[in-house]
Amino acid sequence: MSGATHCPKGVRPLTALAALLGCASFPPALASCTPLRADATTGVELFRESATSKAAPAPYVQDLADGVGPRPAGSENGHKAVAWALDKMKTIGLQNVREEPVTVPHWVRGDEHAELLLPEPQKLVITALGGSVETPEGGLEADVVEVATLDALGSISEDEVRGKIVFVNTPMERTRSDEGYSRASPVRSGAAVAAAKKGAVGAIIRSVATGNARFPHTGYMHYEDNVAKIPAAALAVPDAMMLDRFIKAKKQVRIRMTAGGKSLPEVTTANVVGEVVGQEKPGDVVLIGAHLDSWDLGTGALDDGAGVAMVLETANLIAHAAERPRRTLRCVLFANEEFGLSGGRAYAESHSGELANHVLAMEADFGAGGAYEVSFLAGPAAAKPMAELSAPLSPLGVGLAVPNERHGADLWPMRGAGVPMAEVAQDASTYFDYHHTADDTYDKIDPPTLAQATTVFATFAYAVSRSVHDLGRAPVKKLPF
Amino acid sequence: MSGATHCPKGVRPLTALAALLGCASFPPALASCTPLRADATTGVELFRESATSKAAPAPYVQDLADGVGPRPAGSENGHKAVAWALDKMKTIGLQNVREEPVTVPHWVRGDEHAELLLPEPQKLVITALGGSVETPEGGLEADVVEVATLDALGSISEDEVRGKIVFVNTPMERTRSDEGYSRASPVRSGAAVAAAKKGAVGAIIRSVATGNARFPHTGYMHYEDNVAKIPAAALAVPDAMMLDRFIKAKKQVRIRMTAGGKSLPEVTTANVVGEVVGQEKPGDVVLIGAHLDSWDLGTGALDDGAGVAMVLETANLIAHAAERPRRTLRCVLFANEEFGLSGGRAYAESHSGELANHVLAMEADFGAGGAYEVSFLAGPAAAKPMAELSAPLSPLGVGLAVPNERHGADLWPMRGAGVPMAEVAQDASTYFDYHHTADDTYDKIDPPTLAQATTVFATFAYAVSRSVHDLGRAPVKKLPF
Repeated sequence: MSGATHCPKGVRPLTALAALLGCASFPPALASCTPLRADATTGVELFRESATSKAAPAPYVQDLADGVGPRPAGSENGHKAVAWALDKMKTIGLQNVREEPVTVPHWVRGDEHAELLLPEPQKLVITALGGSVETPEGGLEADVVEVATLDALGSISEDEVRGKIVFVNTPMERTRSDEGYSRASPVRSGAAVAAAKKGAVGAIIRSVATGNARFPHTGYMHYEDNVAKIPAAALAVPDAMMLDRFIKAKKQVRIRMTAGGKSLPEVTTANVVGEVVGQEKPGDVVLIGAHLDSWDLGTGALDDGAGVAMVLETANLIAHAAERPRRTLRCVLFANEEFGLSGGRAYAESHSGELANHVLAMEADFGAGGAYEVSFLAGPAAAKPMAELSAPLSPLGVGLAVPNERHGADLWPMRGAGVPMAEVAQDASTYFDYHHTADDTYDKIDPPTLAQATTVFATFAYAVSRSVHDLGRAPVKKLPF
Repeated sequence: MSGATHCPKGVRPLTALAALLGCASFPPALASCTPLRADATTGVELFRESATSKAAPAPYVQDLADGVGPRPAGSENGHKAVAWALDKMKTIGLQNVREEPVTVPHWVRGDEHAELLLPEPQKLVITALGGSVETPEGGLEADVVEVATLDALGSISEDEVRGKIVFVNTPMERTRSDEGYSRASPVRSGAAVAAAKKGAVGAIIRSVATGNARFPHTGYMHYEDNVAKIPAAALAVPDAMMLDRFIKAKKQVRIRMTAGGKSLPEVTTANVVGEVVGQEKPGDVVLIGAHLDSWDLGTGALDDGAGVAMVLETANLIAHAAERPRRTLRCVLFANEEFGLSGGRAYAESHSGELANHVLAMEADFGAGGAYEVSFLAGPAAAKPMAELSAPLSPLGVGLAVPNERHGADLWPMRGAGVPMAEVAQDASTYFDYHHTADDTYDKIDPPTLAQATTVFATFAYAVSRSVHDLGRAPVKKLPF
């Protein structure tokens, strides 16, 4: 087979297929036998076909969700998850598998329960938002004042709020994209500060959630220096709707809530990293990531077990592809996305010297829905190469990549170095029914759907890692928080 | 208006409508101006049209679920529910509104939590079945042995079960009718006895539930004399599926569970009864019922707030109908259906002398779904009158009544007296996603759908109470438990 000596190590001749395609020397090291683009496209299409039939990400989710379970930042299970990820990467056969130390906060949830006292006694279903201070011994008892939005809270008088628990009742819209969540989630992060500024003694929010299952949804919230730190919790949607009915009927609503948690000393854990080293441009990094941590209520199957599985199965497919990548595919399973992006920050800092060589970064952190679009945030001339790189996705139901600023949260710190980003948009129509609740469990995964999303993710990552396109640099932006 | 003097009290002349229908003397006392059947049909059709536009049952559900909340047998809220029901019946203007004393058991749930210990530690979501004894101090810890069905449990050896916790993992089929529930619920009632007979120390079941939301479903279970009373609990479906995955993978599964409850002294509460007394045959009783109690986990909006609302709104519509019933419509809101049919038993006993005059009994206790069928269990010659009585339901999407043995549980004790039964079958496709869980809350009600079911229920009850048909007697059957 002529040209075989030029093939990179790991390339397996596919003689029959090569003959079928009319290429005598298929598939040796590609730059050396055929023009780059045609050849790369062919290789990517072959990869896509293989991935379509082979991609099996769901067992990774099952193994992580069942076998490790909830793995919040700083927890013992966080360490188990690191060991789990190292083992999986080694089993796949990745190169340079390693832990990169990350220091994470360690907040632990306390007992939580709440009771409606007026107008009629009844249990309420709540959960503390992540990082909330604890309510006083015996619970926090106060009247409730409802506002529809954070803006509305900003405009009412302190007299109406002082000494009360503020209830921010903002429903979340169900959307396929991230739009519903993007609009609703600021309530969760900002309610405590906004309420405290008006003199409130506590803040409760309608869960940032689609649907009306009686699960409260936890998630990150923040405090500000010089603003009183008041306890903050999410009500399950049915309970929020009930309070709203009472308040709309002009009834006095009074509750007692026990919620919050304690901050323990920081813990050192790790980002878990493994690579398929590029054959031609090993210093060029195509980063694919997901986050290994989860919230504490469920088993983190969707958030972000699904993303972890997409990354590991992508790595598996690419590590065993007929043609190895030209650029280095680097898989990063980040520590603590949920509670402050510790892993993303640590990665950007410790790799600051090579971020200029990160040609693209992608994170899978939007559940287990089907992929319907690829978007990118890159240099001004990136549209054309992105179109070429995404063209092979068409048979998977995904059109040419479109410009869009969205990307995984762990990638934020890399924007300071202008690293180009891409995002495989997944259908999130039902994701926020489960997200950050006890109901985020493995049974919510539909394996064929997750396999489709993985195939899109993997094929696009493969296309980029096989290419030598310059995607330019994304506009530099500092982490806004 | 000729014939007006023959109109029963309460009948309001509808002159314009009468003219439109070409009936000079419409609507006087019907037997006295036109042949019964045509006349009754016309009256029922007018009632149906009025009910279609006026029926508004949902506010009753909201008021009961939000304002009283969970109301299990023997609870303080049970008394509040009785007061609530008396008030509603009086407000409607029912006659003979009264409490009829019922003694009910009083079981109270204790703390409940469970942990998977092997193969990997993780929380499990469980709830005690109603009536379960308590686990020992510190919880019950044992290996788990899984069986697919109660039959399978019957056929395995005691050696495989002794000292273990039996896990009965029978999935429930989603059906529009009661079929799925009828097939699955014996697991709940019978698992503890079947497991104890084999030497098990505890029993857990996959929740009798459709869907896979992480709510455990409680419900009635029983013990037998001379069989050890072991604790029994339901696992949420996701947790049951996880145990099954571990066991199928040949992993040792060991759990620790804290669950069960205490039986307190019996409590005297009441069935709440009110009537629209028949104009012509006041001794003939058409009974419509629902149960006032609920399980303790949710607010009992679907089970059986919806049924209570259907009965109250039916009473409201009939009490204010243009033509009053010939027979007495008796509304009974039963105490304690869930935990042993106390109210149904007490009613049958205290009214034994007049059950021969109960021409029909109907109970609404199958959620808030749309009505799609009416069925009956009556005498051998009942098909023809049932067809006549149900013919006006056609515009509501319900065909002629069909024979079927199903009926509400509270009516069981009346079968000993051969009381004919009817059932308005409601679509239960999603009912068992919520049934007996914390998620049975008011937001699960779709008011127009519940109004349709109520209109069917009310129109049929009205047709029977307006008629003088003899529906015969149903085959006598003794309460099987």
